[in-house]
Amino acid sequence: MKNTFGSSVSVTVFGESHGAAIGAVLDGMAPGIAVDEDLIRHQMKLRQSIGALSTARREADEVRIVSGVFEGRTTGTPITFIIENQDTRSIDYGELAYKARPGHADFSAQMKYHGFQDFRGGGHFSGRITAGVVAAGAVAISALHGKGIRIGTHILSCGGIYDRPFGDINDDIEKLGDMEFAVLDSAKAEAMQAAITAAKEDGDSVGGRLETVVTGLPAGVGEPWFDSLESVLAHALFGIPAVKGVEFGAGFAAADMLGSQCNDCFGIADGAPVSATNNNGGILGGISTGLPVLFRTAIKPTPSIYKEQQTIDMNTMENTTLQIKGRHDPAIVHRARVVADSITALVLCDQLALRFGTDWLKA
Amino acid sequence: MKNTFGSSVSVTVFGESHGAAIGAVLDGMAPGIAVDEDLIRHQMKLRQSIGALSTARREADEVRIVSGVFEGRTTGTPITFIIENQDTRSIDYGELAYKARPGHADFSAQMKYHGFQDFRGGGHFSGRITAGVVAAGAVAISALHGKGIRIGTHILSCGGIYDRPFGDINDDIEKLGDMEFAVLDSAKAEAMQAAITAAKEDGDSVGGRLETVVTGLPAGVGEPWFDSLESVLAHALFGIPAVKGVEFGAGFAAADMLGSQCNDCFGIADGAPVSATNNNGGILGGISTGLPVLFRTAIKPTPSIYKEQQTIDMNTMENTTLQIKGRHDPAIVHRARVVADSITALVLCDQLALRFGTDWLKA
Amino acid sequence: MKNTFGSSVSVTVFGESHGAAIGAVLDGMAPGIAVDEDLIRHQMKLRQSIGALSTARREADEVRIVSGVFEGRTTGTPITFIIENQDTRSIDYGELAYKARPGHADFSAQMKYHGFQDFRGGGHFSGRITAGVVAAGAVAISALHGKGIRIGTHILSCGGIYDRPFGDINDDIEKLGDMEFAVLDSAKAEAMQAAITAAKEDGDSVGGRLETVVTGLPAGVGEPWFDSLESVLAHALFGIPAVKGVEFGAGFAAADMLGSQCNDCFGIADGAPVSATNNNGGILGGISTGLPVLFRTAIKPTPSIYKEQQTIDMNTMENTTLQIKGRHDPAIVHRARVVADSITALVLCDQLALRFGTDWLKA
Amino acid sequence: MKNTFGSSVSVTVFGESHGAAIGAVLDGMAPGIAVDEDLIRHQMKLRQSIGALSTARREADEVRIVSGVFEGRTTGTPITFIIENQDTRSIDYGELAYKARPGHADFSAQMKYHGFQDFRGGGHFSGRITAGVVAAGAVAISALHGKGIRIGTHILSCGGIYDRPFGDINDDIEKLGDMEFAVLDSAKAEAMQAAITAAKEDGDSVGGRLETVVTGLPAGVGEPWFDSLESVLAHALFGIPAVKGVEFGAGFAAADMLGSQCNDCFGIADGAPVSATNNNGGILGGISTGLPVLFRTAIKPTPSIYKEQQTIDMNTMENTTLQIKGRHDPAIVHRARVVADSITALVLCDQLALRFGTDWLKA
Repeated sequence: MKNTFGSSVSVTVFGESHGAAIGAVLDGMAPGIAVDEDLIRHQMKLRQSIGALSTARREADEVRIVSGVFEGRTTGTPITFIIENQDTRSIDYGELAYKARPGHADFSAQMKYHGFQDFRGGGHFSGRITAGVVAAGAVAISALHGKGIRIGTHILSCGGIYDRPFGDINDDIEKLGDMEFAVLDSAKAEAMQAAITAAKEDGDSVGGRLETVVTGLPAGVGEPWFDSLESVLAHALFGIPAVKGVEFGAGFAAADMLGSQCNDCFGIADGAPVSATNNNGGILGGISTGLPVLFRTAIKPTPSIYKEQQTIDMNTMENTTLQIKGRHDPAIVHRARVVADSITALVLCDQLALRFGTDWLKA
Repeated sequence: MKNTFGSSVSVTVFGESHGAAIGAVLDGMAPGIAVDEDLIRHQMKLRQSIGALSTARREADEVRIVSGVFEGRTTGTPITFIIENQDTRSIDYGELAYKARPGHADFSAQMKYHGFQDFRGGGHFSGRITAGVVAAGAVAISALHGKGIRIGTHILSCGGIYDRPFGDINDDIEKLGDMEFAVLDSAKAEAMQAAITAAKEDGDSVGGRLETVVTGLPAGVGEPWFDSLESVLAHALFGIPAVKGVEFGAGFAAADMLGSQCNDCFGIADGAPVSATNNNGGILGGISTGLPVLFRTAIKPTPSIYKEQQTIDMNTMENTTLQIKGRHDPAIVHRARVVADSITALVLCDQLALRFGTDWLKA
Repeated sequence: MKNTFGSSVSVTVFGESHGAAIGAVLDGMAPGIAVDEDLIRHQMKLRQSIGALSTARREADEVRIVSGVFEGRTTGTPITFIIENQDTRSIDYGELAYKARPGHADFSAQMKYHGFQDFRGGGHFSGRITAGVVAAGAVAISALHGKGIRIGTHILSCGGIYDRPFGDINDDIEKLGDMEFAVLDSAKAEAMQAAITAAKEDGDSVGGRLETVVTGLPAGVGEPWFDSLESVLAHALFGIPAVKGVEFGAGFAAADMLGSQCNDCFGIADGAPVSATNNNGGILGGISTGLPVLFRTAIKPTPSIYKEQQTIDMNTMENTTLQIKGRHDPAIVHRARVVADSITALVLCDQLALRFGTDWLKA
Repeated sequence: MKNTFGSSVSVTVFGESHGAAIGAVLDGMAPGIAVDEDLIRHQMKLRQSIGALSTARREADEVRIVSGVFEGRTTGTPITFIIENQDTRSIDYGELAYKARPGHADFSAQMKYHGFQDFRGGGHFSGRITAGVVAAGAVAISALHGKGIRIGTHILSCGGIYDRPFGDINDDIEKLGDMEFAVLDSAKAEAMQAAITAAKEDGDSVGGRLETVVTGLPAGVGEPWFDSLESVLAHALFGIPAVKGVEFGAGFAAADMLGSQCNDCFGIADGAPVSATNNNGGILGGISTGLPVLFRTAIKPTPSIYKEQQTIDMNTMENTTLQIKGRHDPAIVHRARVVADSITALVLCDQLALRFGTDWLKA
């Protein structure tokens, strides 16, 4: 399977940036989950992030559900989300048809698809394809809420400016829910936005880090070795274009710790295990411990920039230069936030269904 | 599948630290690959790393191949590697049977397996299980060599001391091949070993970072979205116990770059694409570009330390303390190096077989 | 994965009989295959089989391809086929909402989906869902044609009347291509149709057998043991509703043979292996031999009949009776023919891509 | 995956007829299942079927469990079964190294493995590999017993002689448990054995049919479409060498029925659904109904016969003749019985774990 992730609960994405429609098929979701169309619209809007910080492309992003929902609830059979593409300016693509944009998949796609790929606007590699994931993710988020599991992601850094870390996790998740630019410390949000604007004015772009936390996940979920909870989360997260790193708990910083610093010493509070630290990100031996699951995702700067760049002509295989015109995002980390939430929710629904059965998430 | 990774070429691991035997089944490897038993022994020895820096447990680690090899070559059918456990001291496990060691999988395993898990020496969660991966990996490495694909991993950091980055990649890979403590700058190797020894004397442990490079991988390997080359590599790498982070190219540092810094501008040299930078780690849109594949893996410090730690009694679910005795590794990053090489080789054999067919790696 | 089959080339189906739309996602198909919209329409028409022998439901069955095709050719990324439902009479379903129709999935669906399933017209279990498979199959058939591989299925029996067996296979496949009622001996076609009509007039239905042959498949495709070519074909074929048996070569009749009768003795003709018999259906040890692949599929009679039947009320779990009204097919074996062709083509594309790489089917 | 079946509960087989050892890895089995070594030995003995009706090859078939069992119970981690090969006469294979035995996988293996396959005694294609499946199956059977699910298989036909059909299913399953030659009507057993002996004396072999029934399987297990219960059972069953057909319920006979005959009319008895007929084999829409699951498997006659046969020399690709010497089975249907039981048990454990979670089968 290539454009699918998940086993008991799975998601398949399809579509191209300038094709007729994009979407996703969500299979295996438990029956009886109320499909909250307001939540879907809310999440789609967070992903779209209309405003000066994002691309000028305007899509209605109306999600049409054509299967798998009956009388407002999931049936248990495949749910198909279709989003028609509308604002696909019929421009002359010109040199973009044969010049490889640096940082984009143009060259690697050429080597894989031999020129048959839909190159327009990045085709199937476009971040636009995440819209289907977000629609599917909204259903997964609803299902998890029903079992007391909550997910929150904030922009930990953007353009080199850092947000504060998670504090009171439940409060922070609550707070993040409705924020278009999901930063816990509002002063830092302003600084980040200034960095984005500065990059934009310079014809450049910035990257950032997302930090995600999950509360309420039962202990005992995940597998030792090659289907560790880290493995399956990282697998899906690295499917998001622009993700170049994933770390759990202390992550790379753990590499500089002593064992006595890194080990999360267990204690008991109210019958459940607790720990003053969470350097392992709520996962030990690939299996959830009951502590919050915590991870960070590195998002590289948007590769589309206005500055002239060296590149190659894929037809002649000669050196050339390229200046990308059109509509770009000077940053995508704020838009990727809801994608991280969605992917996480979908992976967890799959893991929970595998662990506790296909009815566990049922209404 | 739980203890298996790979699709066309797959590896299944089995065994427990103090059980009868451990091992692996390697399925789908192309027929006709010469099985180099010297290379297997060499790799097993690198993993074992006898000496003051490692556990005092001594295992012959003799690999018995019971299937899938005929007249010294792979048959194309499952290859089974069996390694008998020998040095399994019949100690009284005492409190280790019910006290959760911090940083270990004891508690999460208890929640998943309800007390039926083999707790002795970490059971199935023991790093010892990687021996099977290393044996299988040696066959994969031989297969890749036959196609001009080479893999090298060095200890990028250990105990806070950093090695130099890769320079001339081919030279560096060559150099690393036989090193027991795989560091490119020998002065740094000494400093790292001093850090390990210091931690050991203090009853503590250190972590580190591994950096892996692959040369010769053809462009066009991998998939967009959810089977990206990053996804499948990270999936398998996060299966190694103690791995808490994986990043490709510039990785987390990319998050602080501008687009104009992070984009790897293509040029042509000798008809092949080249780039002065490799911030994307040889992968764009999930697909190899032909540049070297480059990634780093964070290894947390060994959780087994001699210092007394707070923890819980899993029978009574009450607070208690634990002082772990027995044989520990004060560091595992130097031993994990060959595991990273092996996992990488196995994942690439799978990806190449999927892309170019099951005969592509054939002799 | 639940509604998906295939690994390198995969198909996911979605939709319900009376929902908004049905369709399929075909992932992993090689790039550059010409998408023949006339062939798609032709195949859809064969599946629909308008006429007295089929349901009175009339659907335009216009296939909209919203992704994965660019300038008339496959891109290599997911191809999505959407077919809007139109003739979904808004009848009062009445007792069909809670009375389990014998021979249908109503009761088993109730036990799995707890009443949340879309029961209208059989919902997701409706044979209508095969329309997506047929659309996807048309692309697979085109891809196989490009490599000289051809598939033909005839109605071996219907209502107890038997067609002649395959004779000159290539001629027979050619002949079957355009037939709406695919029978090699036209006299037998008339008898079969009379049997269907008789059953219909009696408020009853008939079943039948399909026999499928594949020519041009290279030797060496398939796996020993659990991904035998028989395994993967049977897996997908048993996904078609109403299929209750699958047999290869002599099939069940082989059970009554002596070894000396059943063994297909090899000979060489024009450098390729030939055999006077094909009792093994072109597959030995799970792997293709280069002889035609031959199998038969049992199709049970349509479970929807007009006669009154005993059944249960799923709400009260009490005995009751049911007389099904509405539009039924008195037989589906003639419509299932093109579904068998399509499934076969899709499975073979997957197997060939796994064996020879994702580019093998490329234009 | 090639030599593996199952998803949540999976089995991987390995080994060659004349290699060092054969075996299987059973992964994902619930923890806490008592591993009954007597049952394993019993099942191994049924598979071996020492006596005049079977091969003269004598193997101790002692099963060594090297992982996944602790203090007599499953741990939940991979269980590895190893069976050393002992009676591997070091004969001169002579012409068997290059002449394709009719009905065997020699030629198809040559096309797939290019001469690197272990040809001795059929290598990896040997029925001997089923020993690992039977060992793993014994654990699955124990797990199912704990939940009231029972499986029985009888020889429905052998050499053209038919056993009586299942009568009182529970009694019949009980009766079959210990029978070496599993036939319900003992008079028919004698006739079948006479047919085997007659074939043997003539240097020939016979085939047969197995009929399997499962009681106690809850309703609601299985999936619509491509992971139907029929699909996953048939997939695994067609992995057994010599299986050429699988049919559920009335199977191929359903093709000749009217809808009014084939539909199993539901009624209620003691709150559970019952039916006077079971033409659908306990599966509707791919999902279990709660009625007994019933299917038949066609076993072709053993391809190894003493009679001279036409075949090809795979080195020269020329016509030749072959007379197979050595030890053969004149029939394998009686030995395959326990393999069918084992495969069925393993598939059901997987399906139940997927449906109800990994703990459902737990002690």
